[in-house]
Amino acid sequence: MFAPRESVAQVEHGLALAPRFDPQGLIPAITVDSATGAVLMLGYMNAEALRLTIATREAHYWSRSRQALWRKGEHSGFCQRVDAILVDDDQDALVLKVRLDGPGSCHVGYRSCFYRAVDLDAADAGSGPVRLCQLEAQPAFDAAAVYAGLPNPTRV
Amino acid sequence: MFAPRESVAQVEHGLALAPRFDPQGLIPAITVDSATGAVLMLGYMNAEALRLTIATREAHYWSRSRQALWRKGEHSGFCQRVDAILVDDDQDALVLKVRLDGPGSCHVGYRSCFYRAVDLDAADAGSGPVRLCQLEAQPAFDAAAVYAGLPNPTRV
Repeated sequence: MFAPRESVAQVEHGLALAPRFDPQGLIPAITVDSATGAVLMLGYMNAEALRLTIATREAHYWSRSRQALWRKGEHSGFCQRVDAILVDDDQDALVLKVRLDGPGSCHVGYRSCFYRAVDLDAADAGSGPVRLCQLEAQPAFDAAAVYAGLPNPTRV
Repeated sequence: MFAPRESVAQVEHGLALAPRFDPQGLIPAITVDSATGAVLMLGYMNAEALRLTIATREAHYWSRSRQALWRKGEHSGFCQRVDAILVDDDQDALVLKVRLDGPGSCHVGYRSCFYRAVDLDAADAGSGPVRLCQLEAQPAFDAAAVYAGLPNPTRV
């Protein structure tokens, strides 16, 4: 279902999907909310996850922490319905536009994984670690209840 | 300027920037157009590129093809003025919101690197490689002129 990569011109200008997977067999997928355009998460797909996402129009990823295929929402019920899949110039990155079937996408409980931003004004001041500010005032759901019994994927 | 990563709680809930760079020393950065919310590109930063981006509010990346620090626009003049830098739950991915100082961000000449999308209706039909459709009808600038003499970064 994926075309072979044969030339720069074909990859950049062709109209056949010819994804470039990295040495681990993965391609990054930027997931955005179809309704608002907000970036929800950055996930990774292997060929099977991409194939399933196209075939079912539900977002599938490869979980790097669990080393397993991952249908988004399989634990929480908060799945992602895929409206569009975009591919970049060299076909080594994807954008998924999704409708969220639930209150959020983030394992910490926020709507978006990107719930903090660098405080650029404070960063101008200089010394010490760069400070963040909170963008989402409250979690969108109770992650401890929704993901009860599952290991936390965050690696320190 | 970056905080050490000490615990899951600190990484997920803390208000100090503690980025996780991958084994190559890189962190992915999703660049979106501040004005439209459109995803422009997926780039990678090393610690120095991130430090310079915060300090100058101009997007800097690490070029994986050239293995060199890369101030976006250093060749084309089309730089990216940074309005915001978001970080995700486990601090291993960034979103940059930028104002484009020029017609585009893509080395092929389009405004966004994501100028093609999977034709999901055709994909339902089944056999053969997945087809793409073109989202940007015309390039935004003449890439051959703007990047004259530079190697093409696309790897087949």
